[in-house]
Amino acid sequence: VPRPVITFLSDFGPAAPGVCRGVMFGIAPDANIIDINHQVPRYSIRDGAASLVFALPHMPVGVHVAVVDPGVGTDRKPVALKVGRGDILIGPDNGLLIEAAELLGGIVEARVLENRALWLPVVSSSFHGRDIFAPTAAHLALGEPFASVGPTVPIDDLVRLVQPRATVVNGRLETTIVQVMPYGNVTLAGTTLDLTLAVGALVEGRPLRLTFAAPASAAASSEAAATLVEDTVWGLTFGSVPLGASVLMSDADGHLSLSDNQGDVARRLGLVVDRPVTITTR
Amino acid sequence: VPRPVITFLSDFGPAAPGVCRGVMFGIAPDANIIDINHQVPRYSIRDGAASLVFALPHMPVGVHVAVVDPGVGTDRKPVALKVGRGDILIGPDNGLLIEAAELLGGIVEARVLENRALWLPVVSSSFHGRDIFAPTAAHLALGEPFASVGPTVPIDDLVRLVQPRATVVNGRLETTIVQVMPYGNVTLAGTTLDLTLAVGALVEGRPLRLTFAAPASAAASSEAAATLVEDTVWGLTFGSVPLGASVLMSDADGHLSLSDNQGDVARRLGLVVDRPVTITTR
Amino acid sequence: VPRPVITFLSDFGPAAPGVCRGVMFGIAPDANIIDINHQVPRYSIRDGAASLVFALPHMPVGVHVAVVDPGVGTDRKPVALKVGRGDILIGPDNGLLIEAAELLGGIVEARVLENRALWLPVVSSSFHGRDIFAPTAAHLALGEPFASVGPTVPIDDLVRLVQPRATVVNGRLETTIVQVMPYGNVTLAGTTLDLTLAVGALVEGRPLRLTFAAPASAAASSEAAATLVEDTVWGLTFGSVPLGASVLMSDADGHLSLSDNQGDVARRLGLVVDRPVTITTR
Repeated sequence: VPRPVITFLSDFGPAAPGVCRGVMFGIAPDANIIDINHQVPRYSIRDGAASLVFALPHMPVGVHVAVVDPGVGTDRKPVALKVGRGDILIGPDNGLLIEAAELLGGIVEARVLENRALWLPVVSSSFHGRDIFAPTAAHLALGEPFASVGPTVPIDDLVRLVQPRATVVNGRLETTIVQVMPYGNVTLAGTTLDLTLAVGALVEGRPLRLTFAAPASAAASSEAAATLVEDTVWGLTFGSVPLGASVLMSDADGHLSLSDNQGDVARRLGLVVDRPVTITTR
Repeated sequence: VPRPVITFLSDFGPAAPGVCRGVMFGIAPDANIIDINHQVPRYSIRDGAASLVFALPHMPVGVHVAVVDPGVGTDRKPVALKVGRGDILIGPDNGLLIEAAELLGGIVEARVLENRALWLPVVSSSFHGRDIFAPTAAHLALGEPFASVGPTVPIDDLVRLVQPRATVVNGRLETTIVQVMPYGNVTLAGTTLDLTLAVGALVEGRPLRLTFAAPASAAASSEAAATLVEDTVWGLTFGSVPLGASVLMSDADGHLSLSDNQGDVARRLGLVVDRPVTITTR
Repeated sequence: VPRPVITFLSDFGPAAPGVCRGVMFGIAPDANIIDINHQVPRYSIRDGAASLVFALPHMPVGVHVAVVDPGVGTDRKPVALKVGRGDILIGPDNGLLIEAAELLGGIVEARVLENRALWLPVVSSSFHGRDIFAPTAAHLALGEPFASVGPTVPIDDLVRLVQPRATVVNGRLETTIVQVMPYGNVTLAGTTLDLTLAVGALVEGRPLRLTFAAPASAAASSEAAATLVEDTVWGLTFGSVPLGASVLMSDADGHLSLSDNQGDVARRLGLVVDRPVTITTR
């Protein structure tokens, strides 16, 4: 019998995940707890959701705990989602889990966590990862029936993130930064097909121009408020461009990705999630 | 039969814990090694002790290795402590283990590590985590009797940290920063009860003033030497205050904790462990 | 039957290792995956090689995956090396694995990874850790024969790092920084014996002078281009010098190591890998 699988993602940083591991192993000593990432940028639900999309399709079937939870201590619901592949996703009802759940066969049933018999005896107002999510996940991994976690909630009532989309406008692609990867590569909304529809066939070395709009939060700063232009090329691999030069390509999951060859384009250009960008020919 | 549990805390950062894991698995291949935290601020025994207090009560019964060891290579003793709950704590005799041991039922027996048959064959002067603590822990996890690690040492002879206490003086609470948490939340000595005794009943939104004394180590710098005033409120959750505002509340373990809602109050105010702070009404 | 061991080192940082763990556990659910270090400085093959030398001799016999791979997406080969101790090392053919393989009994057989049946069905151009190395390692850990990974490659054809050596010249030791350790300790090429041959017997407290040449990459900057002199002493432990002072000693593995007692000498002096240094008496 293989060990029951629990995966674990959070924005906790280095100290808090260990406590949650202790809680889970205390309940399910034979669990195989697989850490996905605990360095999700703090409170960034979108980055956490992207990290789950990146990781969960490669994880064994199991119980997946994810905690990026700016609303802890408010009335946001703790939820568990049963998906088509057979996994259960557990976390706050703030949009974090939805996209990954859809990749794993779609949400079959959603329940609110209300069964305190599956929680730690004392629940704090600020650490539901330890007190609610981890112990409930461990009980489910041990075989506790899904229905025991709490009452169902209509799938359509779950909170969803607003999804940035790439759109073709007058022969250019209007898109947005959806994720800054660990090495500073920047993932944009949209695919190779979207970009081809906008600017025509993509061949290695084809010159492209990215124009980043001013970040919304820096509107008052004249310097940062300026738009930013990065001239780059289409490439198949990092090796398509010299060391330190940028390249636009399809990432490992088929999305548009801007990188510096052996560099950190996000740091070089000061790029952050949600910044709008327009791709044109040059 | 469940896997024997070894938990592991250090100030090693990312590279050195892996070597110790290898040593432990080489001796006890079926161990369940649970990482607590390896990002304890370097050489901060108090931060390490606080991290153990935070984590060990939630860990399964087992062998707990903790290494924050500014005295490695001097004559500080390596020790193992048997506690009331049945666990064994292993680490340097510098105060790191004591508070957590008391939470786990108190120290029943203390021994100095002297049995070289339980160590690596060659012991370096600077990496006792790998050469002494890890292999001894693994042998104990496999069932080696506690008495075999070395001779007993009187419990009263163990080195203890001086504990900061909160005291009520003329209707104010004199306290100290005892820990800076991973997200920048700041834990103070004392509890809600201490603060109530000092300033009266605490209700959500009640205005409070924190006055931080000059940090001892910055006495010569006129800017840093100034005291620092932070006006805050009592709250039940982060949601009690606007984004970015500070709030004083009871943390997950019942201690007084100052936080910025979705911010990092320690970084904003430059707060470090051991800095004195006075809490008053305003 | 003990769990099959897979160790794992990379320069991936916090997010990408989890995905690879998922891939490996999906194939080999009972594997014991031991993380060595995922914070190797990005693209630094030499730092990765040093981290393997530091760790692998302490790891159980198993399959060792290491990915520091600036050439991913080019024609550098993915390889697997069978060593005398019985382990298999897997990673890019760029010199990363060689020194550790020699420590584990030497390379017995080398093969290029070409068997796509052991890879993920779709292979990206930029994430061979997930798509090639991790799944091949997991299949080998499950018992897949070594010969099945692909055809042999002559051992002499493997890419090797140029090794920095310490040399005695006119009574001084000419050496080089070969590794910056996690705490900022700096490992130099050469051993205590080399230094004794250069300057005579080493006794605790003996004064020594280290002269660091200008770093090659800063030649154009007049400030950084200056040589740097650090006066230090020979010591047996950190305790040989006052807090904050530097000490030259033999590290846990017998190499020359410069440290600040409870400090970070690399940060204080701005030291990086490959910078030349001359050790003399004073």
